[in-house]
Amino acid sequence: MMKMGVTAPAGFVASSMSGGIKSDGRLDMALVATEDGQAVPCAATFTANKAAAAPVQVSKAHLAETKGYASAVILTSGNANAATGVQGISDVEELCSLAARRIGSMYSSKNISPNSILVCQTGLIGIPFPIDQVRHRVDSLVDGLGGSRKHGELAARAIMTTDKVQKETYIEADGYSVGGMAKGAAMLAPNMATMLAVLCTDANCDPDSLQDILRSAVSDTFNRISVDGCTSTNDTVVLLANGRSGSVASDSLYSSVREACMSLAMQMVNDAEGATKTAFISVEGASSNSDAAKAARKVAESQLVQCSLYGEDPYWGRVASEIGTSGAMFDIDKLSIYYGDILVCRGGIAVDHDSSALAGYMRNRSIEIRCNLNLGDGSYQIITTDLSYGYIDENRTTS
Amino acid sequence: MMKMGVTAPAGFVASSMSGGIKSDGRLDMALVATEDGQAVPCAATFTANKAAAAPVQVSKAHLAETKGYASAVILTSGNANAATGVQGISDVEELCSLAARRIGSMYSSKNISPNSILVCQTGLIGIPFPIDQVRHRVDSLVDGLGGSRKHGELAARAIMTTDKVQKETYIEADGYSVGGMAKGAAMLAPNMATMLAVLCTDANCDPDSLQDILRSAVSDTFNRISVDGCTSTNDTVVLLANGRSGSVASDSLYSSVREACMSLAMQMVNDAEGATKTAFISVEGASSNSDAAKAARKVAESQLVQCSLYGEDPYWGRVASEIGTSGAMFDIDKLSIYYGDILVCRGGIAVDHDSSALAGYMRNRSIEIRCNLNLGDGSYQIITTDLSYGYIDENRTTS
Repeated sequence: MMKMGVTAPAGFVASSMSGGIKSDGRLDMALVATEDGQAVPCAATFTANKAAAAPVQVSKAHLAETKGYASAVILTSGNANAATGVQGISDVEELCSLAARRIGSMYSSKNISPNSILVCQTGLIGIPFPIDQVRHRVDSLVDGLGGSRKHGELAARAIMTTDKVQKETYIEADGYSVGGMAKGAAMLAPNMATMLAVLCTDANCDPDSLQDILRSAVSDTFNRISVDGCTSTNDTVVLLANGRSGSVASDSLYSSVREACMSLAMQMVNDAEGATKTAFISVEGASSNSDAAKAARKVAESQLVQCSLYGEDPYWGRVASEIGTSGAMFDIDKLSIYYGDILVCRGGIAVDHDSSALAGYMRNRSIEIRCNLNLGDGSYQIITTDLSYGYIDENRTTS
Repeated sequence: MMKMGVTAPAGFVASSMSGGIKSDGRLDMALVATEDGQAVPCAATFTANKAAAAPVQVSKAHLAETKGYASAVILTSGNANAATGVQGISDVEELCSLAARRIGSMYSSKNISPNSILVCQTGLIGIPFPIDQVRHRVDSLVDGLGGSRKHGELAARAIMTTDKVQKETYIEADGYSVGGMAKGAAMLAPNMATMLAVLCTDANCDPDSLQDILRSAVSDTFNRISVDGCTSTNDTVVLLANGRSGSVASDSLYSSVREACMSLAMQMVNDAEGATKTAFISVEGASSNSDAAKAARKVAESQLVQCSLYGEDPYWGRVASEIGTSGAMFDIDKLSIYYGDILVCRGGIAVDHDSSALAGYMRNRSIEIRCNLNLGDGSYQIITTDLSYGYIDENRTTS
């Protein structure tokens, strides 16, 4: 069987169950852990939202307390445990304590600290977390841990909300590997908008280097997909490194982690609810990379550009207009815009082109819009989708 | 007949015609002028978009040249004359020269400078302006000038693009009046997204004071409506003051101009294509007014919040989440949120409320969402709409 997911690297186990958080009885709890209960180097990135959910606040505190070590990650779906105040925090701490106690008792000699457990949650905001229902299931969740392919796959299924397929990855590198799972239809299916990802590697790496590697990888991958510009209260990416396969060059580890993250990010965009297009918005020739990023993001998050993509209309005027309001240095007289390889605007004005070839290009699922500001060397790419009826249907009501 | 529109204040005339810019023969050219061709104090505000259209660039230069005087405003609809390079600029200058010559010849003693003419245009971006078709119609446009109610009304119709109704206003003040017209389904029907407004008053006011008054009024009215966060390449508001009724207190003039602008702004929101709701997003208790503005704008422009409004779903969790990413100082534990008078969140968590009363409230066309950050005295309000199928239909293609 093909290796895949969080249980693929040596020494990691996973489990899943239905905890009754989702009303329809689907899987909604998962656990990923080191197979001996040992805390290992752990890196994580969290949402920048100031309304960060309880699990984000608690996980951050735990990682600070352990100075970058963790032994397990609990994940639940169906309730974000955001805007739930002190009770929400207390519920998360309770989950950690219960899991730590049970994991400890599995390895009778071990005393597992609740601080070595992290929590990721996703679902509706502002609804009290149903801890009364969930607390007595934690023991079974721990007892179900196993290292098979199936254990990993079911864990990936247990974190799905509006996702249509589970999202897993596996990168085989020289002497070690990285496996992972994620949920999130990017920020496009944002009833339960959060993106969560857990990555495991059997490489050896100290916590500080691991954090640097994860931060860079996330900034090059997950942070480059944007569907509606809405940042969730719960976004979390966790990377555990148990060291089973010994030390590896940090360049190699970075590149494997980045590849794993990009694979999961693209699975998110391709599963984005309602999307009929995947659009790669590239800005080149900006005065700086940060200007390029501003411009690419403004174009990618534009409702107008997204509507044009849905309608397969190569209306580059909107692209030019959005760059003009992005805050990036901009001289429209220097602007070129390409759809795929077709140049539609040069020197800020329309260029004759083969419009039937362009119409054909717009019918592709995957569209590249490339803008050259011709001002410098800055470049950036954002991956987005179109805006369709499906997005509205998904998000008009929570029921 | 009720007084209304740009020709209502004493001493202003208007005209309109079909110039063939719109392919279906609808009115697409308008002219508003002082009735004697005299240049009078004139204030204007323009889009901040760095891809500003040719008419914006030319009008700014003309006003700078005349130090705040103008005698007429030419308006066209159906082509934005944006992203049209030097040819676009030259086309606008030609329109001004032609209009100046003809207006001058009407008042045989007068030599009208092309610099005293401003131009507003709205429509598709990136398409060469059809000057060959339009240049020989300018004389007829000038010849059609008249001061009747009908002249003003037809001018207001001639600037419509996706607008369903023309937008006019008239404010009768103590000894003077302000009349105006506008186009724009806010930024909601942004195929031809621009908002344009021309206001006329018979009050006397020097150019500098007039500019201050207009800038404040616009910032309190037009700049507080936002539908999709997209700023057009062509947005322009012009205010002409011919002084026929003598001096007025500047407080009084400010308040009349503001009222006229607010009336036009609300007409835009209410005519916003596809919109089924008008939402007043108020943020109070922010650390500063600018923080309140950031928070209110982020909530108002959120696709998620707008989808919830369309679905009549009072999902305040999204409102809290958007404030958390707005950049405003924020402590979720202090947050209160009201829908109308119904408190749904206090101290950052859900509050029991009459959910059937709330469901009834959500069925109103007009919804107020009031957020108190409980941190200071800053407040701000943005008026927005919901996001519906209609928005997508309007914007998916330009044809």
